[in-house]
Amino acid sequence: MPVLQRLGIIGVGLIGGSLALALRRARPTLRILGIDVDARALEQATDKGAIDSSAPPERAPVAECDMVVLAQPAQTLLDSIVPVAQRMRPGAVLTDVCGSKEAICARAAGQERVVFIGAHPMAGTEFRGFAAASPALFTGATVAVCPPVGARDDRGAPVNLVREMWLAAGAAKLLDIEPSDHDRAVTFASHLPYLAAAMVVDSLSRASDLVPLASELAAGGFRDTTRLAGDGTVGGAAALNRHVPAAARELAEQLRLLADELTQTPEQVLDRLGRLAEARRRMRLPPVTPSR
Amino acid sequence: MPVLQRLGIIGVGLIGGSLALALRRARPTLRILGIDVDARALEQATDKGAIDSSAPPERAPVAECDMVVLAQPAQTLLDSIVPVAQRMRPGAVLTDVCGSKEAICARAAGQERVVFIGAHPMAGTEFRGFAAASPALFTGATVAVCPPVGARDDRGAPVNLVREMWLAAGAAKLLDIEPSDHDRAVTFASHLPYLAAAMVVDSLSRASDLVPLASELAAGGFRDTTRLAGDGTVGGAAALNRHVPAAARELAEQLRLLADELTQTPEQVLDRLGRLAEARRRMRLPPVTPSR
Repeated sequence: MPVLQRLGIIGVGLIGGSLALALRRARPTLRILGIDVDARALEQATDKGAIDSSAPPERAPVAECDMVVLAQPAQTLLDSIVPVAQRMRPGAVLTDVCGSKEAICARAAGQERVVFIGAHPMAGTEFRGFAAASPALFTGATVAVCPPVGARDDRGAPVNLVREMWLAAGAAKLLDIEPSDHDRAVTFASHLPYLAAAMVVDSLSRASDLVPLASELAAGGFRDTTRLAGDGTVGGAAALNRHVPAAARELAEQLRLLADELTQTPEQVLDRLGRLAEARRRMRLPPVTPSR
Repeated sequence: MPVLQRLGIIGVGLIGGSLALALRRARPTLRILGIDVDARALEQATDKGAIDSSAPPERAPVAECDMVVLAQPAQTLLDSIVPVAQRMRPGAVLTDVCGSKEAICARAAGQERVVFIGAHPMAGTEFRGFAAASPALFTGATVAVCPPVGARDDRGAPVNLVREMWLAAGAAKLLDIEPSDHDRAVTFASHLPYLAAAMVVDSLSRASDLVPLASELAAGGFRDTTRLAGDGTVGGAAALNRHVPAAARELAEQLRLLADELTQTPEQVLDRLGRLAEARRRMRLPPVTPSR
């Protein structure tokens, strides 16, 4: 089985930067090329020893890489798949970190130059950029891995390269999953919680005269409920997920019904809320990890 | 100034139990009478040394107490104000911990036997009952304190007793506030975040075939966003808050509009979500406290 020798990472922000830092630690001999539109991010990543060389996207020598990881914001990532693939060595491996997989894998299936393996590490924070990157970001994380598409070369070796990269970066579990199953599940696991959190922040922002007082009265509940609203990586992925609008409309409708019930049958609402608290307790949620 | 000698706490669950434990530590000579419909909770509280004596509500010697704290679920608490006041010594002090204050203080203003001071400690967890109580629950917390109502005796001393009790229990800040200002602010700081969290759990529960997969794909985002949905003390308070239904309807409408925009103008949605992430960062949110 081929060993990964030269890796390109396009986008050295929170996710790409953390991946570089983690691989630097786990695979000291791996050569990592950092690619970013932001020269300062490249400088920071170089200073921290996360990358061996750096380049802006238009001049990056991606043809020299065995594998390239796309780690830009979702829409930019989607749009870069085909152009980057065309500049890579035929049969090389292209992969990504986007939180939506159907649109990404479908776009990648439209080229036959490289083997593309869509992946999604389940990790993030409310902070952004290389400054927030940590070699421990993926420690213990689950990484969703989609079936290979694109070039019809031997696809087994590329899949293994991607899997080994995430295990080396600290992932505890690799979950083989079809893009559509992934997107339906993350709609509820991530994208709806994100949109609800953002709209709660929006509600408070609109009642702007109450912001100082509400901030004083906010115990941990507001902070926790809205933490996800600060995770910039989720919004772009949610916008690419075709299952999200219908689910958000249904969530809005349920919230509207709840508001009506609160004025008409508050006891029934409390029973229902109690059952939902129980339902949440029965869900197997990941344990709390210490804040970085 | 009179010193508090004998305190009654009605409801020795998470909040009342934590208050008893904290006061036991800070004021070892204070006699605490624990009152609860649940004999097992009283037994646990006695075993842990949180209370000196115990009684069921109907037989509790509240006339022997200088002050009584109502710490039951919101609707029960509201309904108990007048009956409990009638059994107390005239001019004694009655206070509470409910997360809504307008309905509570209005009800208490309808009696003149005791001085009532509505209060609301900003603290909670997703766990319930005396088993989850901790002497550190209120450490560093803000406690909202409303103006006295009810008996027209000297009201200064009662206010001081309530303030001193919360400071002794660990509160870092006492916030004097009118009940209506309190309820408008907690609508956004607590009650809407709670209802949004509950409805996100509801959405996932409805897509029941996806629960196992979504649980595997849930990074910390789902857990944090929905944590508040498990806090049973918030729902009852939200149901008593007259500002909540309109705010929940507006939140639902904004979420519906967002769903439409996601299909029509995704770039604009992402700009807006980015601005909301910034708005959240500018809010002065309480620091993360370690999980108990």
